[in-house]
Amino acid sequence: MAVRKVSEKTIRRLSHYAMCLRRARNDGVKVITSSFLSGRCGISAAAVRKDLAAFGDFGKQGSGYRVDGLLRNVELILGTCDPPPVIVVGVGNIGRALLESGLDGTGGYRYTAAFDADPDLSGEMIAGVRVLPLDEIGSSAGNITDTIAIVAVSAGHGQDAVDRLLKAGCRCILSFNLEPLEVPEGVSLRYVEVSTELDILTHSMKCGD
Amino acid sequence: MAVRKVSEKTIRRLSHYAMCLRRARNDGVKVITSSFLSGRCGISAAAVRKDLAAFGDFGKQGSGYRVDGLLRNVELILGTCDPPPVIVVGVGNIGRALLESGLDGTGGYRYTAAFDADPDLSGEMIAGVRVLPLDEIGSSAGNITDTIAIVAVSAGHGQDAVDRLLKAGCRCILSFNLEPLEVPEGVSLRYVEVSTELDILTHSMKCGD
Repeated sequence: MAVRKVSEKTIRRLSHYAMCLRRARNDGVKVITSSFLSGRCGISAAAVRKDLAAFGDFGKQGSGYRVDGLLRNVELILGTCDPPPVIVVGVGNIGRALLESGLDGTGGYRYTAAFDADPDLSGEMIAGVRVLPLDEIGSSAGNITDTIAIVAVSAGHGQDAVDRLLKAGCRCILSFNLEPLEVPEGVSLRYVEVSTELDILTHSMKCGD
Repeated sequence: MAVRKVSEKTIRRLSHYAMCLRRARNDGVKVITSSFLSGRCGISAAAVRKDLAAFGDFGKQGSGYRVDGLLRNVELILGTCDPPPVIVVGVGNIGRALLESGLDGTGGYRYTAAFDADPDLSGEMIAGVRVLPLDEIGSSAGNITDTIAIVAVSAGHGQDAVDRLLKAGCRCILSFNLEPLEVPEGVSLRYVEVSTELDILTHSMKCGD
């Protein structure tokens, strides 16, 4: 099914709903209220009710919403019913921590391979995922056109890792490297940037926000 | 000096400029052009020029901008000239990786203490930072009113860690825990959420974006 594009802000809310709904389902909860989602997700009750109404007829205010049906529809809108595999490029501190933390509770994402330039790491298993040589991106990982790659290599090696991924057909990259990276149009690149988050928090502190 | 509040979108751009300017300064570069910043930060040249004009008279298009003066002013606007200390609560995979990766290149942020509930970890030094018992938040860390706390504890323990931080006066929290956390008004709380980033990338993949 084609997925209709929704804004990043909406995806972020839906992603939080999905996380809370999965947790509720795992706890054996069958029906939830909008105020339950509001409290768990830190989103105003009015915004939750507006979203739920937009998703279709899954229940109503007062009598509650069916967890299963609501989760399925949220995942349909997100396009995450059948989530893509995730590979990790660079198994230094951050890459290793990501692999060891795993992706439980994310609705089916899983790490399928890891790559590192250090030949000493080749063959090592980290939380059930084998580390492969960097050269094998695009061969061992199979077709990576529909794979998300997390880049967490040493400083200064980000662009090389990205270039290898692009050559292998990868179109979705999440970078933990602080350096700005270049990708052609049509490739989705996002950054997880601790230093920018610290700047945002510092700014709010200094503004007395 | 009081810092004037600017939007998160602008802070994000300024944070990237600061990072690129620090790198240029470390490389011995004295003067840069707007297209240099544009290329390094992945921000359009027009947007960079507009920002630079807004920051004051640091040079002009064609003849270039002084790296030192520009960086100082960007940091003044951000409020990061004298960045606050950063503590890490929870030294599992992610917390340890953050400490080991350090905060070089961020313009002076530094980890000053780490805390963990596991008594076996107490006293351990990670990249020069001592791990202290969780109970000591607010005593060993001194006054943490002007400290940023990174929360990276095990799943289900996030709110307890946050409650301890709030009790010790902390008002700026960056959470790597996936669970939604509750803080009173006036406390800044931000999340680094790998699973939401994966959802955003998957959505763009499925939309053929």
